[in-house]
Amino acid sequence: MELLPRLDPDEVRRLDRAHVFHSWSAQDLIDPPAIVSARGSRFTDHTGREYLDFASQLVNLNLGHQHPELVEAIAEAASRMTTMAPGFAAETRSQAAAMTADKAPGDLDSVFFTNGGADANEHAIRMARIHTGRHKVLAAYRSYHGGTAAAMALTGEPRRWGSEPSFTGVVHYWGPYAYRSSFHSDGEEQECERALAHLRQTVEVEGPGQVAAIVLETIVGTNGVLVPPDGYLAGVRELCDEYGIVMIADEVMAGFGRAGEWFAVDHWDVTPDLITFAKGVNSGYVPLGGVIVSGAIRETFGQRSYPGGLTYQGHPLACASAVASMRIFERDDIIGRARSLGEDVIGPGLREIAQRHPSVGDVRGLGVMWAVELVRDRETREPLVPFNATGSDAAPMGEVAAACKKSGLWPMVSGNRVHVVPPLTTSPDEVREGLAILDEALSVADAHTA
Amino acid sequence: MELLPRLDPDEVRRLDRAHVFHSWSAQDLIDPPAIVSARGSRFTDHTGREYLDFASQLVNLNLGHQHPELVEAIAEAASRMTTMAPGFAAETRSQAAAMTADKAPGDLDSVFFTNGGADANEHAIRMARIHTGRHKVLAAYRSYHGGTAAAMALTGEPRRWGSEPSFTGVVHYWGPYAYRSSFHSDGEEQECERALAHLRQTVEVEGPGQVAAIVLETIVGTNGVLVPPDGYLAGVRELCDEYGIVMIADEVMAGFGRAGEWFAVDHWDVTPDLITFAKGVNSGYVPLGGVIVSGAIRETFGQRSYPGGLTYQGHPLACASAVASMRIFERDDIIGRARSLGEDVIGPGLREIAQRHPSVGDVRGLGVMWAVELVRDRETREPLVPFNATGSDAAPMGEVAAACKKSGLWPMVSGNRVHVVPPLTTSPDEVREGLAILDEALSVADAHTA
Repeated sequence: MELLPRLDPDEVRRLDRAHVFHSWSAQDLIDPPAIVSARGSRFTDHTGREYLDFASQLVNLNLGHQHPELVEAIAEAASRMTTMAPGFAAETRSQAAAMTADKAPGDLDSVFFTNGGADANEHAIRMARIHTGRHKVLAAYRSYHGGTAAAMALTGEPRRWGSEPSFTGVVHYWGPYAYRSSFHSDGEEQECERALAHLRQTVEVEGPGQVAAIVLETIVGTNGVLVPPDGYLAGVRELCDEYGIVMIADEVMAGFGRAGEWFAVDHWDVTPDLITFAKGVNSGYVPLGGVIVSGAIRETFGQRSYPGGLTYQGHPLACASAVASMRIFERDDIIGRARSLGEDVIGPGLREIAQRHPSVGDVRGLGVMWAVELVRDRETREPLVPFNATGSDAAPMGEVAAACKKSGLWPMVSGNRVHVVPPLTTSPDEVREGLAILDEALSVADAHTA
Repeated sequence: MELLPRLDPDEVRRLDRAHVFHSWSAQDLIDPPAIVSARGSRFTDHTGREYLDFASQLVNLNLGHQHPELVEAIAEAASRMTTMAPGFAAETRSQAAAMTADKAPGDLDSVFFTNGGADANEHAIRMARIHTGRHKVLAAYRSYHGGTAAAMALTGEPRRWGSEPSFTGVVHYWGPYAYRSSFHSDGEEQECERALAHLRQTVEVEGPGQVAAIVLETIVGTNGVLVPPDGYLAGVRELCDEYGIVMIADEVMAGFGRAGEWFAVDHWDVTPDLITFAKGVNSGYVPLGGVIVSGAIRETFGQRSYPGGLTYQGHPLACASAVASMRIFERDDIIGRARSLGEDVIGPGLREIAQRHPSVGDVRGLGVMWAVELVRDRETREPLVPFNATGSDAAPMGEVAAACKKSGLWPMVSGNRVHVVPPLTTSPDEVREGLAILDEALSVADAHTA
């Protein structure tokens, strides 16, 4: 195809260094490998080295690389209608909205589509502010909500620092994290109680009548795969109901099967007012995100115009890939497979690994969303690397990652954790293969233990 | 294709009303037509009515609907590599960056890709703030920069109001608009001088050492197709150089041929520090935007990490569509065609129309980006509808739009203007056909003149 000439991998790398400005990076200190092909749970770089993708790229490839039917659906959809302005009704936009609403809990029946997770969170906040007539938004420390101004202001970790000051009215609170409790709790149950008490107290001192929304990742993603203790989300829901606060569940990472349910909130039968999504909705094959909107909030904008939009909203090609992806999910019981991969393979596998390695402090997760938290000392729980470590301070985690890569596993490393988040379509044998590599790599971490 | 079942248009509309939350709308007050097919400069709704698209949807379809080779390139690219995380080098990402840098003026040689225009502007501001170590950003009234918090804060028109307060540090100034001068000027030349004096004065009172960036649409888009007078952009460039301020040109609408050049700044040989783009880069066939970055700003992030990113950054499928689109531009001399469509057909055609209609106050534009400004009285220049008119106040413009649609023309109406912004690939005869319909429709406007 003359319009898409092929380049050899050296040229791909040369042009990348000359012209691509990379995110989250010092441009002169990186040397990105070129990826030349990918399929299923594996991809291959310019040296011919193949990796098992235990990161699903950025935890978005729920159906894996180059799913043949999803690729074919994109080609077919492009031939029908690539794009159409948001003001019109369009076939795949209607279908994607109807199917998403069908999967979503309660009366979350309307979908405001966006290009990704960040702008989904932006619009969720805007809806909540106008719906309540209030300004403040509570968001959790240890969270990531996206790269645009409002989404970044919600974010409760160092990636926010470089954008401050910026968006007004966000107040951060601490969520539950029993392994490193902010509340000096003695376990999950007490952590839940105390986290809810802290949240209530924060709402009270900020002024319940001032708080438009409480935003949280249903399961905290990049900041640690923090699965909320039973009762926590229900408690947040109650608090929101008591004070007329909008509950926003960010399911950009946890949604669409990642946590072994269509939406992670389904584990606890809690219905938020707004759910934001992206990534898993179509495995990121075409940029797409959105907000699923409750009946009450939609009603607020029944006679009153919603002040927001974007050119590629409800993009027909993106929506087509979401429709095809959801149909593959249904046909192949991807949700069931994700659940059993977690319950039967990853969970037991990681717990076994933990027994062998003094560097493993905690193992936690659900579905195909797991974290192995590494420590210098199991008793003190001192993290293997300090919070927000860079340079030589971060070296032990870099060594673990390098050991994985050397053996053909592409890991997701965040802070002092290795996250295990392969595509949901990864076979049990492939998962075991990856866990065996991780097992071996962790001896590198063990060498740093007390 | 069983993964993409077909729906009849009535079902598309029913599901749209039940499940799609529309932008910029009161949900119960709209009844969007379903678009069932589109090709070139025309699209067809569920009633079978065909429209000539004089809006290029949202001024993004520079190559028109369903360009067969661009559609084919998307299918081919999907079969090679739909998506790959931004941390890697990837073939189409490298190609799209290199080609974009090649088209861009001066030393704007690096590209930070985004999902659209809004996040491009978000990241441009962030780069400017860190590069300068300053916080304030100056942006123009009568501008639109996108729907996320920072982009919306930059926006200088009523669409911002529903999101306030939000992002800090934006100060608005008035740009040149000779037909309705904020500076009581007597024409283009004086308007230019006075607009520059106003901008300089604004910088001085805000504190030159506080100002990170001046952001402007090279040619103001939805707010009026305001073509800057000769000398204005050069004057802004000088002011920025004098005070070490970053000049950001938003070319989301005007870039990639719309104004008859690769970038609209090329008309005046001015090189900004950052150019933001989206829409025309790939006609919106796959969501894509970006920031083109100068050598000096890239250098700031040579040894220092840039604090921002997004999952779908440099999306391989999106980048492939940009590569194919740019190659079609080159092969078919789309830039030259756009220029001659403006100079030989649209410009002369609109000036002729203006002579026949007392409601036409002003005609202006470049390339395939034109506005017809409608007035009640040519002498007083009273707009045909008041600023930010709604309901019955806006009726005269609604009548003009309805007359166009009735005759098969889909117009872009904004305020008291009809914008003429068809695909750049529209044939001269099609443009004449559309202008003839507009000509007739303007008699509806004439009826409202004094």
